[in-house]
Amino acid sequence: MKRPGNKPPQPAPATVAHLGEDRLVAQLTNLLPAPDARVRIGIGDDCAAVRSGSKTLELLKTDAVVEGVHFTAETDPARVGWKALARAISDIAAMGGWPEYALVTVAIPPSTPVLWMHGLYKGLRRAARKFGIQIIGGETTRSTGPVFASITLTGRVEPNRCVSRAGGRPGDILYVTGRLGGSLSGKHLDFIPRLEEARWLVTHFKPSALMDLSDGLGSDLPRMARASGCGYALDPDRVPRTRGASVTQALSDGEDFELLLAHPSKNAARLEAAWKKRFPRLPLTAIGSLTANPSARSIPHGFDHFPQP
Amino acid sequence: MKRPGNKPPQPAPATVAHLGEDRLVAQLTNLLPAPDARVRIGIGDDCAAVRSGSKTLELLKTDAVVEGVHFTAETDPARVGWKALARAISDIAAMGGWPEYALVTVAIPPSTPVLWMHGLYKGLRRAARKFGIQIIGGETTRSTGPVFASITLTGRVEPNRCVSRAGGRPGDILYVTGRLGGSLSGKHLDFIPRLEEARWLVTHFKPSALMDLSDGLGSDLPRMARASGCGYALDPDRVPRTRGASVTQALSDGEDFELLLAHPSKNAARLEAAWKKRFPRLPLTAIGSLTANPSARSIPHGFDHFPQP
Repeated sequence: MKRPGNKPPQPAPATVAHLGEDRLVAQLTNLLPAPDARVRIGIGDDCAAVRSGSKTLELLKTDAVVEGVHFTAETDPARVGWKALARAISDIAAMGGWPEYALVTVAIPPSTPVLWMHGLYKGLRRAARKFGIQIIGGETTRSTGPVFASITLTGRVEPNRCVSRAGGRPGDILYVTGRLGGSLSGKHLDFIPRLEEARWLVTHFKPSALMDLSDGLGSDLPRMARASGCGYALDPDRVPRTRGASVTQALSDGEDFELLLAHPSKNAARLEAAWKKRFPRLPLTAIGSLTANPSARSIPHGFDHFPQP
Repeated sequence: MKRPGNKPPQPAPATVAHLGEDRLVAQLTNLLPAPDARVRIGIGDDCAAVRSGSKTLELLKTDAVVEGVHFTAETDPARVGWKALARAISDIAAMGGWPEYALVTVAIPPSTPVLWMHGLYKGLRRAARKFGIQIIGGETTRSTGPVFASITLTGRVEPNRCVSRAGGRPGDILYVTGRLGGSLSGKHLDFIPRLEEARWLVTHFKPSALMDLSDGLGSDLPRMARASGCGYALDPDRVPRTRGASVTQALSDGEDFELLLAHPSKNAARLEAAWKKRFPRLPLTAIGSLTANPSARSIPHGFDHFPQP
């Protein structure tokens, strides 16, 4: 029944571009039943983690790169292969785990040169070798448009070393590894996933929350804070920047594939000293802290796959 | 050194269309190192199977559907979701296993209606519920072209009930379930993966080889024979056909998602009688046998994702 003076009903956002990535994922997740007790971590973290009848949790990840979005037709296919697998390794690292098996699904136009596919697999092979992964399956199908390469990666993690993005607490110090911004100039294709560093972290320390930076600190930090039920205080000037990158770029460019972690402040000094000794060439930088006020989450936004117009 | 009269060197096929799907996969597999002993079944079967520290083998599958290839822009998205998951379930069934966890990667144009995504997930949810699967992860990214939905599905199977496509022996009877051909008229979107039937088969009988028919009997039977080191004798007139489908369609249309199995002849009569009692409404039809001569593999070919021009 319409009554004069009532607000008109809000029309539902019509396209995924209007809705934005996070709200889309939230809506889709709501359509699914809650997982059972074997699922320790479900949708919304870097990986899913399930109990699997052995002492370790199994980690499961799927991730895709798309021509025109994550690489171009001119990109060396070996770099595309490296990137495709390294992205998924970065997510396994972000849970504190190590990778085991990969499966590869590729959709390609029939006109794709065979040598392009060889190049892709050489890049996949290089990343698999370096990080101890076995590629044990795959599927090749036809695309009527761009090339798609989707990676499935399994991993393992001890239950007491599995770190989600949701465990952050008010007062935790926020750290990032490496330098942020400017990834498009090349790093997005050649980055080294922080697997060694993350394993060291969860073995020697107890970070309360951990994730990898894929969409940019400006998008990913609010996600960690939201998942942890916290707000945050960020000092943008302390964000370590790639040479030549502005603060805005460091917050928004995305595809840094560095680690973001929240760590209890009482052990912060010990963590910083031990890190410097173990990884002298990779900075670990305190950039702010988690706060009790969940509404304190105001920094420029990063890369959204479906930016609002 | 060139000598007159020598054949000119064969140019390598330039595109994946020229090479064809099976040879492409063989070349790519050759680029990868051989898997270690934990991998019971690697690339080339319906699923990979790995030892995972528990009593059962873990099955891993990835599979994708692409707009313009496996569905059209006009297809009800709920049917796309059902199909995407059911295809992967069919592969888990083809190993003798049961499915457990699914992850979903979708690449979509930003202009995709939100309701289309809801529809897709409702179809996924329906298939997940019917077959006891938990959807525990996913990734949504941008496509510059068609919609692309890639499914990762894990499963389990007892080691003694795991059936590959490579175990067929000369003299084995070849059977197919259901009726073949004409899938494009609708079945390819709504088919019931033969999970219940496959589990019953491996629990009560010992098929020597098992696979699902995705590309058409004319493509898939030669694959089973090749993997088993056998040839085959097929009676095309005995191939059970969907009403209205020709023999050629039954061999070539593809996307039947019925089971193809090889079974020792000595128990064949008992299998046929038990099947009829257990699944009175789904035919199990003997269509030929495996033979000792590996070169006897001549039937019209089925659906190849990259058909030779």
